[in-house]
Amino acid sequence: MSGEKGKLWGGRFAEGTDALVEAFSASEHYDRRLYAHDIRGSKAHSAMLAKVGVLSADEVEAIHLGLDDIQRDIESGVFPWDPAREDVHMNIEARLTEKVGDAGKKLHTGRSRNDQVATDIRLYLRDQVDALLVSLKSLRAALIDLAEREADTIFPGYTHLQPAQPVTAGHHLLAWEAMLTRDTGRLADLRKRLNLSPLGAAALSGTSYPIDREMTAATLEFEAVIDNSLDAVSDRDFAIEFCSFASILMMHFSRVCEELVMWASPQFGLIALPDRYCTGSSIMPQKKNPDVAELTRGKTGRVYGALTALLTLMKGQPLAYNRDNQEDKEPLFDALDTVSAVLGVMNGMLPAIVFRADACRAAAGKGYPTATELADYLVRKGVPFRDAHEMVGKTVALAVEKDVDLAELSLDEIQSNAPLAEADVFDVLTLEGAVAARDHIGGTAPNQVRAACERARARLD
Amino acid sequence: MSGEKGKLWGGRFAEGTDALVEAFSASEHYDRRLYAHDIRGSKAHSAMLAKVGVLSADEVEAIHLGLDDIQRDIESGVFPWDPAREDVHMNIEARLTEKVGDAGKKLHTGRSRNDQVATDIRLYLRDQVDALLVSLKSLRAALIDLAEREADTIFPGYTHLQPAQPVTAGHHLLAWEAMLTRDTGRLADLRKRLNLSPLGAAALSGTSYPIDREMTAATLEFEAVIDNSLDAVSDRDFAIEFCSFASILMMHFSRVCEELVMWASPQFGLIALPDRYCTGSSIMPQKKNPDVAELTRGKTGRVYGALTALLTLMKGQPLAYNRDNQEDKEPLFDALDTVSAVLGVMNGMLPAIVFRADACRAAAGKGYPTATELADYLVRKGVPFRDAHEMVGKTVALAVEKDVDLAELSLDEIQSNAPLAEADVFDVLTLEGAVAARDHIGGTAPNQVRAACERARARLD
Amino acid sequence: MSGEKGKLWGGRFAEGTDALVEAFSASEHYDRRLYAHDIRGSKAHSAMLAKVGVLSADEVEAIHLGLDDIQRDIESGVFPWDPAREDVHMNIEARLTEKVGDAGKKLHTGRSRNDQVATDIRLYLRDQVDALLVSLKSLRAALIDLAEREADTIFPGYTHLQPAQPVTAGHHLLAWEAMLTRDTGRLADLRKRLNLSPLGAAALSGTSYPIDREMTAATLEFEAVIDNSLDAVSDRDFAIEFCSFASILMMHFSRVCEELVMWASPQFGLIALPDRYCTGSSIMPQKKNPDVAELTRGKTGRVYGALTALLTLMKGQPLAYNRDNQEDKEPLFDALDTVSAVLGVMNGMLPAIVFRADACRAAAGKGYPTATELADYLVRKGVPFRDAHEMVGKTVALAVEKDVDLAELSLDEIQSNAPLAEADVFDVLTLEGAVAARDHIGGTAPNQVRAACERARARLD
Amino acid sequence: MSGEKGKLWGGRFAEGTDALVEAFSASEHYDRRLYAHDIRGSKAHSAMLAKVGVLSADEVEAIHLGLDDIQRDIESGVFPWDPAREDVHMNIEARLTEKVGDAGKKLHTGRSRNDQVATDIRLYLRDQVDALLVSLKSLRAALIDLAEREADTIFPGYTHLQPAQPVTAGHHLLAWEAMLTRDTGRLADLRKRLNLSPLGAAALSGTSYPIDREMTAATLEFEAVIDNSLDAVSDRDFAIEFCSFASILMMHFSRVCEELVMWASPQFGLIALPDRYCTGSSIMPQKKNPDVAELTRGKTGRVYGALTALLTLMKGQPLAYNRDNQEDKEPLFDALDTVSAVLGVMNGMLPAIVFRADACRAAAGKGYPTATELADYLVRKGVPFRDAHEMVGKTVALAVEKDVDLAELSLDEIQSNAPLAEADVFDVLTLEGAVAARDHIGGTAPNQVRAACERARARLD
Repeated sequence: MSGEKGKLWGGRFAEGTDALVEAFSASEHYDRRLYAHDIRGSKAHSAMLAKVGVLSADEVEAIHLGLDDIQRDIESGVFPWDPAREDVHMNIEARLTEKVGDAGKKLHTGRSRNDQVATDIRLYLRDQVDALLVSLKSLRAALIDLAEREADTIFPGYTHLQPAQPVTAGHHLLAWEAMLTRDTGRLADLRKRLNLSPLGAAALSGTSYPIDREMTAATLEFEAVIDNSLDAVSDRDFAIEFCSFASILMMHFSRVCEELVMWASPQFGLIALPDRYCTGSSIMPQKKNPDVAELTRGKTGRVYGALTALLTLMKGQPLAYNRDNQEDKEPLFDALDTVSAVLGVMNGMLPAIVFRADACRAAAGKGYPTATELADYLVRKGVPFRDAHEMVGKTVALAVEKDVDLAELSLDEIQSNAPLAEADVFDVLTLEGAVAARDHIGGTAPNQVRAACERARARLD
Repeated sequence: MSGEKGKLWGGRFAEGTDALVEAFSASEHYDRRLYAHDIRGSKAHSAMLAKVGVLSADEVEAIHLGLDDIQRDIESGVFPWDPAREDVHMNIEARLTEKVGDAGKKLHTGRSRNDQVATDIRLYLRDQVDALLVSLKSLRAALIDLAEREADTIFPGYTHLQPAQPVTAGHHLLAWEAMLTRDTGRLADLRKRLNLSPLGAAALSGTSYPIDREMTAATLEFEAVIDNSLDAVSDRDFAIEFCSFASILMMHFSRVCEELVMWASPQFGLIALPDRYCTGSSIMPQKKNPDVAELTRGKTGRVYGALTALLTLMKGQPLAYNRDNQEDKEPLFDALDTVSAVLGVMNGMLPAIVFRADACRAAAGKGYPTATELADYLVRKGVPFRDAHEMVGKTVALAVEKDVDLAELSLDEIQSNAPLAEADVFDVLTLEGAVAARDHIGGTAPNQVRAACERARARLD
Repeated sequence: MSGEKGKLWGGRFAEGTDALVEAFSASEHYDRRLYAHDIRGSKAHSAMLAKVGVLSADEVEAIHLGLDDIQRDIESGVFPWDPAREDVHMNIEARLTEKVGDAGKKLHTGRSRNDQVATDIRLYLRDQVDALLVSLKSLRAALIDLAEREADTIFPGYTHLQPAQPVTAGHHLLAWEAMLTRDTGRLADLRKRLNLSPLGAAALSGTSYPIDREMTAATLEFEAVIDNSLDAVSDRDFAIEFCSFASILMMHFSRVCEELVMWASPQFGLIALPDRYCTGSSIMPQKKNPDVAELTRGKTGRVYGALTALLTLMKGQPLAYNRDNQEDKEPLFDALDTVSAVLGVMNGMLPAIVFRADACRAAAGKGYPTATELADYLVRKGVPFRDAHEMVGKTVALAVEKDVDLAELSLDEIQSNAPLAEADVFDVLTLEGAVAARDHIGGTAPNQVRAACERARARLD
Repeated sequence: MSGEKGKLWGGRFAEGTDALVEAFSASEHYDRRLYAHDIRGSKAHSAMLAKVGVLSADEVEAIHLGLDDIQRDIESGVFPWDPAREDVHMNIEARLTEKVGDAGKKLHTGRSRNDQVATDIRLYLRDQVDALLVSLKSLRAALIDLAEREADTIFPGYTHLQPAQPVTAGHHLLAWEAMLTRDTGRLADLRKRLNLSPLGAAALSGTSYPIDREMTAATLEFEAVIDNSLDAVSDRDFAIEFCSFASILMMHFSRVCEELVMWASPQFGLIALPDRYCTGSSIMPQKKNPDVAELTRGKTGRVYGALTALLTLMKGQPLAYNRDNQEDKEPLFDALDTVSAVLGVMNGMLPAIVFRADACRAAAGKGYPTATELADYLVRKGVPFRDAHEMVGKTVALAVEKDVDLAELSLDEIQSNAPLAEADVFDVLTLEGAVAARDHIGGTAPNQVRAACERARARLD
């Protein structure tokens, strides 16, 4: 079979490939998506070969026209993909030879599938990373805008899922934005390590042709060449580092979505999600389910899985190249597609959250959240912190017993446990007072939230 | 949009679903493969509804004919799949109503998508499990045959990748078979927990219709009904347990394939793999690469990844059903497809391994592998084990110094470190003697390997 | 150094071990816990050696007395543990020789550290598994009792964290018990594969001594011998399978604890947890934090991590033994300790949950949970299911608009969307009616819950 | 119990903590290692409180002297650690109060355990990161030196574990160094995100005291303050990012060690490892086992496991703080300890590898590794690449048939398949010629390897 199909490596083999094996080892159905980057890489490589005298000007022109033609065929859907040609690279090269003859056969001079594949993935991933950077930036901008709008909205601050202290909704939204800022930093960092050219490493040791690696690197807008040919073909760190970035990003969204699901439930009732990001139930017509948030939380698993897959793949592999590495693409592509889709829907959904200010304020008031204020008040009156804590504990116990809020106790009742309290104690027991008092950088006071929005906006650029 | 498309839950919603969200949440492109099991489940459910008087005989007949019709359409490729109908279940139900009218609308009486989906996956997975059990059995049978053929072939037994003691190739092959026997046991065990009927759990709490769950369970050949409706719709243990089985199976194959890659390399040269399970190199025509073994080893990662994905998915989910769970299918299907393909190629490749007996014998002789025999010989002569060990260590050091094998030392030289050695010491220093001496159950003596083959064959049935 | 310290393998080496390496490779600080099982294994092995004539009766008696002595020393804290002796096995053996002389040196005859370690871990894990089986059983029994007590308590049944249909608290508790029942099944299944004897496999190929493997297997209460010596020393499936069981168990507890945390929060307020399973806050004296539930949920990660560690460890390892495998113990022990501690606190905490019946009932009534009842009612009046669904959707929309419950609409209002409704429609709109109507096996009706408790209790034995 | 032991939060609780729970939730046994950083943080915090007028000069002096005293007690082993005080923070604070009275009680003013713990971990991890950066740098320097020494040593270049093309040992060593360079980059990048101050976030929302966060940040040498208080206490990205770095590092070492184990095995015999990094066998005295390499490879699993643990831990956690997060420390510490120990032994072992030049050269010559040269030679003579490949394939088949090397064929025999070959063809068929010909940046030619060493050395600083 290999004879008829023109496998690259058929020369020596007596026996054709088993049909089951052909299906087992083909990658064309998922690596097709690399076509434009493969063509771009081949153009840069052949232009360089012409410059150093390995190809003639006519040959390189024929190759470029043939590749353009193939790109058009692919994009208009008429390209004759052939799984027997194994992968996108051989599909394109074999087709090129059909189109332009011997010049096509010379395209692969001075390179190997090993450096070609590594180049294609890096080019493709770089474009995807750049798109994600744009998407992250727009989402952060939207969150900052929303945070500014909700800078005064009293909102429950939870620890252990118990209301602990009042915050503002804007403050909470900026915590989400802070997560995405770190994600952006990680993505920008990995782009540096990604944006290097493996082209010229050939199979593993370089080539005896007088190639010019800096020229192809510059043509392909890589920042530099990879300095060691074995490393260039065996390195898949960039894929793992991307999946690590993606896993942390999804972890962040899993937290955000957990909050959305809870806040939108009738028990909390703090927000409304727009209908277009929800679905109903086939049997319970009254339900408005936060499906997009739940699906996103669920998709965290597949991205963690992609990271596990790639770490496992590379564990214990000797250099320089083993066929195991064909398995690098599907987890990477799946992680890419997932975070890209998730960022897409988040860009639509998060800015459209509606905060129910009354419900938020009521929830923020549950469970004696100004107890901390009372303790701090007592400390300012001279009570040691740990003693103040005991006094407040007893005061709360009294309020629980009477089923009233702290502000509803009488001054006498407060003084029975905290003798130093005076009439001004009631100033610190309101939610607005508690929030406004956290008036330092990073604190939840509305003016601090607004200042934080300004700083966050400045960081965007 | 939901109005036109006939979403199941459109009644209450003012606003249609966002287009991006529709793509984000559709599953029809990957859950299509459940169609036959969905139809089977619907037939069982509707037959039961007729028996308990909820449907008429005419209605159920119309439903069954319509479903048969749909199955034919799907299998002949003319079924009008519509992504806007979200999943395979709604595609079939909506089409049924187009074909048979009001009877179709009644099919969903007394069930919910929650118990329907759970039923379909269990039915589908059960069929796949049964196919894997067959595939495992045939591979074990082939390994036993090969082990019997190679029961006398001297082979290096490694620890720390250093030749330690001679074994026979048949003995090593039975170690592989033992791994697959445990895998078979795990698969059979999980089948028991899988083969239970969730049908009748409805959305989460059961239904007020007078359903007969034992009847549908029996029709669908489930062993019993699942005893709690919340558990029935929220349980995905079976998917995780399958991926756990699959991960251990792939771990085993990663070990087998690591050995194949090494044994087939020129440095070892212990075996030849048939050409049809290898490929060549685009730039190095002399290479015969063990690609199938490498790809299999590489695919270990994706199955570990599927396990991670599902464990992550279910972590911290409250009952009874959340949309997160839609994400259960792709990892499960990918793990299924992978182990199914791997077992397919292993059934072809492993029985076709050719052992190079001379090379195996030569490798088994490297590195003083009969040193243990010498130690045991001395113990039998009355030397305490730990003392014998010291004597053998010095004897080996002498042989290393003279660059000869232990059997090539003179009796005098041996006695210089081990005074109790006599002329019969040379009997235990041959590879054949060393192998034959391990003559107890589980030992590597050829007659023990043959007896083990008999026992393994008996276990197959 | 190896000379002074008496390393087992020092004979040939010119250079001692690097000090850093000694610390890097020592395991005595964590494998000490195997001491009792190591001693038990050594007794069985030496008794067998005596029976087959390799040791004298006097020698075996000396060994047994010496081992008893050592066990007492260890248990009274006076045993001189020496990290330079690397592991628990060599600590005990070297000490034995100090105590009983030459007989001690003969103990290791016919075995190797490879089969010795494998035996010890299996014996130790078997005891731990048996303790976990007891702990699981008592927890299930406690949950069944609690479920029976709460069989009538109306409780919200959630999907998508939205109240969907009323259930009973007892019904929900039985869903937890169902998870643990499957966990018990998995643990019992893996015990079968665990409870086999590797002893006699020696380093990898068996031994030339006339050992009796069935005898040691019987003495150690193993069900059978492991049939292949290479497999016996290289298999770590049991550790992975245990971590897989443990991961699923922890996943279940992460779901239970997620529910506890939410139910105990002021927003839900459905349950009270006893003070002794909660903690307070250093700065917010009013908080009662469900720490034990949170810690348990958090500990899920470490058990998933142990599973990942072991799967990674074994990936791609050639047979028969590599030092990598020393790394099998810590993840296994950590998973064991974690699930053992978690089952301990769950046995205390779960039976002590107090359901706040009024709050549960109120929550169950939120969000039109009897809408399904109304739809089913209409179907029984002859309306096709999908049409009934539309009618109910509009009725709910009307109730939302008027901010009333379905039962508070007038018959006229109901009939305006659902013309077939009659006065008896109000019977199905109560929570108690809805719950009682799910009266089939697995349904939430109180009598079904009680029947399920009976079946669950029967399964316990 | 809480009363006697002085739990921070005991005020309100009627019932003491369950004893089992106390053990379950204590962390003092593993977080003790944070003591110095906890003390440093407390000093900075109290100095700031004095500056803003919350503490008096006397109070802050008493606190600092007390803390110094405690640090001395801890470091001399006399500190009375008390598990009932739960963690390192409370142990130190409670002891401080015992020592200095009321001033100690005031230390916690304006902070919470939430921001205190986050501060301590960041300070501790920062020191560890800095130590790892030093260790990575010294290992890279050693590898560069070794690579320069072995710049001319002919070495087999493998793909698919088959000799593919000759390289030099120095070239291969630089591929290892390249991996570590990326690891260093990742570690430096994460340090930026780590080195920010959470102090002042208090429990979650900041504090009403007039704190100066920039002052404490500067005192503690943080680069800036964390901009959002909720984020400051809930963020554990740095721990995950560290474990991601550590996983990739260990993956690299698993590849290096896989190569060491293979190269040191008698089948390859390419290198010798020094005795002090190897161990022997209890039963096979001739073995020299590469235990350190194997253990390192095996330890990959535990670091992957730590990453899995932390990703799982954070998945789906709502803000701001939940007790789950106590589980962040052990995986982080274990990953830290592991990579620290591994870098320690690698710094000793890798520079001590001895290459067996003759064996390396012989291995590099196996399997027609100059076939590529022949193909390139023909291309330079004008044969299209793909045609040249066919010709070489047939020539190799002829050499295989005659069991000779390519250079041992006659010119006639070569010309029978490759008519354009001339006498100069034999120049390209030597290993030295093949290596020298890869004379471009990143290629394996000895002069290129030396130039690469220079560049690598420049990058070190």
